[in-house]
Amino acid sequence: MCRFLAYCGEPVYLETLVCTPCHSLIEQSMHASEAKTETNGDGFGVGWYSERTEPGRYCEIRPAWSDENLLSICSHVRSHLFFAHVRAATGTAVSRANCHPFKAGRFLFMHNGQVGDWTRLRRRIEAMIPDELYPARTGTTDSEAIFLAALGQGMEQDSVRAFRSVLAQIEREMEATGATAPLRFTATWTDGERVWAVRWASDGKPPSLYWRLGDSGLIVVSEPVDAQRDAWTPIPTGGGLVARLGSRPETFTFH
Amino acid sequence: MCRFLAYCGEPVYLETLVCTPCHSLIEQSMHASEAKTETNGDGFGVGWYSERTEPGRYCEIRPAWSDENLLSICSHVRSHLFFAHVRAATGTAVSRANCHPFKAGRFLFMHNGQVGDWTRLRRRIEAMIPDELYPARTGTTDSEAIFLAALGQGMEQDSVRAFRSVLAQIEREMEATGATAPLRFTATWTDGERVWAVRWASDGKPPSLYWRLGDSGLIVVSEPVDAQRDAWTPIPTGGGLVARLGSRPETFTFH
Amino acid sequence: MCRFLAYCGEPVYLETLVCTPCHSLIEQSMHASEAKTETNGDGFGVGWYSERTEPGRYCEIRPAWSDENLLSICSHVRSHLFFAHVRAATGTAVSRANCHPFKAGRFLFMHNGQVGDWTRLRRRIEAMIPDELYPARTGTTDSEAIFLAALGQGMEQDSVRAFRSVLAQIEREMEATGATAPLRFTATWTDGERVWAVRWASDGKPPSLYWRLGDSGLIVVSEPVDAQRDAWTPIPTGGGLVARLGSRPETFTFH
Amino acid sequence: MCRFLAYCGEPVYLETLVCTPCHSLIEQSMHASEAKTETNGDGFGVGWYSERTEPGRYCEIRPAWSDENLLSICSHVRSHLFFAHVRAATGTAVSRANCHPFKAGRFLFMHNGQVGDWTRLRRRIEAMIPDELYPARTGTTDSEAIFLAALGQGMEQDSVRAFRSVLAQIEREMEATGATAPLRFTATWTDGERVWAVRWASDGKPPSLYWRLGDSGLIVVSEPVDAQRDAWTPIPTGGGLVARLGSRPETFTFH
Repeated sequence: MCRFLAYCGEPVYLETLVCTPCHSLIEQSMHASEAKTETNGDGFGVGWYSERTEPGRYCEIRPAWSDENLLSICSHVRSHLFFAHVRAATGTAVSRANCHPFKAGRFLFMHNGQVGDWTRLRRRIEAMIPDELYPARTGTTDSEAIFLAALGQGMEQDSVRAFRSVLAQIEREMEATGATAPLRFTATWTDGERVWAVRWASDGKPPSLYWRLGDSGLIVVSEPVDAQRDAWTPIPTGGGLVARLGSRPETFTFH
Repeated sequence: MCRFLAYCGEPVYLETLVCTPCHSLIEQSMHASEAKTETNGDGFGVGWYSERTEPGRYCEIRPAWSDENLLSICSHVRSHLFFAHVRAATGTAVSRANCHPFKAGRFLFMHNGQVGDWTRLRRRIEAMIPDELYPARTGTTDSEAIFLAALGQGMEQDSVRAFRSVLAQIEREMEATGATAPLRFTATWTDGERVWAVRWASDGKPPSLYWRLGDSGLIVVSEPVDAQRDAWTPIPTGGGLVARLGSRPETFTFH
Repeated sequence: MCRFLAYCGEPVYLETLVCTPCHSLIEQSMHASEAKTETNGDGFGVGWYSERTEPGRYCEIRPAWSDENLLSICSHVRSHLFFAHVRAATGTAVSRANCHPFKAGRFLFMHNGQVGDWTRLRRRIEAMIPDELYPARTGTTDSEAIFLAALGQGMEQDSVRAFRSVLAQIEREMEATGATAPLRFTATWTDGERVWAVRWASDGKPPSLYWRLGDSGLIVVSEPVDAQRDAWTPIPTGGGLVARLGSRPETFTFH
Repeated sequence: MCRFLAYCGEPVYLETLVCTPCHSLIEQSMHASEAKTETNGDGFGVGWYSERTEPGRYCEIRPAWSDENLLSICSHVRSHLFFAHVRAATGTAVSRANCHPFKAGRFLFMHNGQVGDWTRLRRRIEAMIPDELYPARTGTTDSEAIFLAALGQGMEQDSVRAFRSVLAQIEREMEATGATAPLRFTATWTDGERVWAVRWASDGKPPSLYWRLGDSGLIVVSEPVDAQRDAWTPIPTGGGLVARLGSRPETFTFH
């Protein structure tokens, strides 16, 4: 699977969460604790918001743990809102186009989970991407397809409803094709102002997801980046969280 | 565009054509003479047949001119049938999945040309790929889509007819969508026993293509790899060539 | 050889000079006009100062023209002082360790030129690097060795004198070993507050170097990035330039 | 540390040992059992002998587990003598120049272990490399330096004596500099006709090493590639093995 991290609050250097903590995302690229796979070495990506409308992005196919560029960028880029992801490929190629966070306009999206029987369902789910967004389909992951499909279903207006709708449609396709492997969707996304995080799976076993209000802002993670486990609140199966910059996060029910 | 080379004959080391000649394919990666772009530095690939049913393949995203692995592989792999390609990307990403030669089962395929207005037509052409071959769609190029579509239209039985059919269908789609940019198709493919090469474009301006019967076998190239220009026969626009290992090549009319 | 660019002035996005101009550094990676080699596709690097003591750095082995990360970083990083470089390798490997700008503490250094007969002289020049800096020797270029040697000869106190001293020593080594190929040194470096640029060669033929005081600050380039050639002042052979943030640059004689 | 494999016998496809077995070298790149580090994802390399004097080599900086090229090459290259290595970097950069097997002329060399306090000792050990071999020093590892030093001390005539001599010299340098971290040297090398493997460490704790006479030839491994643990003979600390193609391997005492 994968491990990811999202931050939203006072501007901090990316390294504060991506590199420095004892169980930082870089550490999780080699030694994740709560993931199905301990190693998440199939590429990585960071995305961050500056004063421009669209976010910046740096992704690479080598493991996060050995990339000097990542360390340097994280120690020099300061942002009020950033995403970071380390990947464990589940069948699709290791390529930049398959690295999270995915970006479209001012949106970023990261996913931890899977569309079961993806090979069989891929075509039907890609068909959910509207024509005008299809050029943005540059990789082959289920994650990117879900993201583009949600954009096509009104993500700009109501992103939670858009993802709900896409997931329901995928479940119908799974039923139609007799796909039995589960659909798992632990994900986080942002429009540059708000951050959403949800945790859901068709078999009730979504990947882990936690959040914490730190000194400077909200942190959403696949697993805690430090040793203070009590400081992190798990998002329950079927739960979600939304936070606007500067406001307390609110929880909601997803699906 | 791109530059490519195909060989079929007595087993020779790949370096004989890919690396050693004064205007070798590696040289063409930096200084092509007859291509629209002098630089073909957006990745490369070699494919070769050994005693196994399916061909071997090595492709990489860096320029051919600086890859030590390519030199080493070409000086140690000897084959009776091999393909090599240096890429100049025209809009799609530089990734391994977009490198030629494309491979499916025992087939290899290389393309020099373009589907004009590709972004607009992509979806319609991908729809021509049959379900069972869709998992093999790993990149985003027009070339790979054409290849997989041809496989779906009987390439195993009659490959020339399959490509003709696919190209005709693409022209119809172009008409339907009002696409005006030309469809250009200078290409070569093989099933491991025969090599085909064709040169055609909807606007009568396909990329260059030559062939030569050397001491040890047939060589098909985008442009001559040596200084003996008289020794190379241009394939005319609308022309094709097919050769079976050990037999003289035969020309035919394509399209 | 190579092409480079240095900027110092009001904070601007790196893209303003690296990506946007008609003859930007990215454009020069494929089509340099005044370099010995038109193609500078053997890796690249950017280095920039933020509020931290040491500069940030992003370098990669693929050509600058096809790297999406570079575009994204340049459109999101804004800096008052940055360096950028596209490389044409002259004998040494294409690797991150051989990419400019080289970094040591708060210094950045870029070089365009060569130590002639480098293979023969390498060992003697590496011997000029003091023990405490030797761990920073991660590549095999002449450029990095010169930089580390200069650091060892008082670059922190008087950088111009340090490079003069190193170059004089190299000339002595060339004489001692009978090396006849020229020593060429068009270079720029910074300590984060001042930028130096010099142009010199033992055979009187150093690579080109220009500067311009733009609206927002000083730009030093291998060749102009725009079409306003009259706006750029060539640095003469044997000449140099130094500028402190916010002050007018001053010229000096080098060597 | 690292994991490696050497084969010498009837020609077999590299995949037979590198890819196919349940605990193949590729499997060991993610899940090594007997190494200090379970993950060996910092690049890899294969080297093989064909009919040419010098061996072929393919090495890359990404993890072995995700490289499609490696699979393809291993399923198409058949050799009577090949080496393969997956790397876990211990302080030096992830680069092709730091990937094993190292090659010089007809020799290949792989190392699992370390020169303790390498940063401090590097310069002294590089000084053991003779001038004529110094251009071959392209990386920064202790392993490559030891190999080139051994070549300079008569490896062509008596390779075991050459390595013994180099290791003794390194121990003297360690003493001179007060280096206390151990020198560990589990290694294998070949001249294209014979394969040597030794296991030694200054602290009596060298990395593991095994051998087996399979159906088609000799296999030397860091750890067994299959589940038949009884079929593998450990090489004892201070022990060595030498085999000539077609003859039974002989053991010897090393150091």
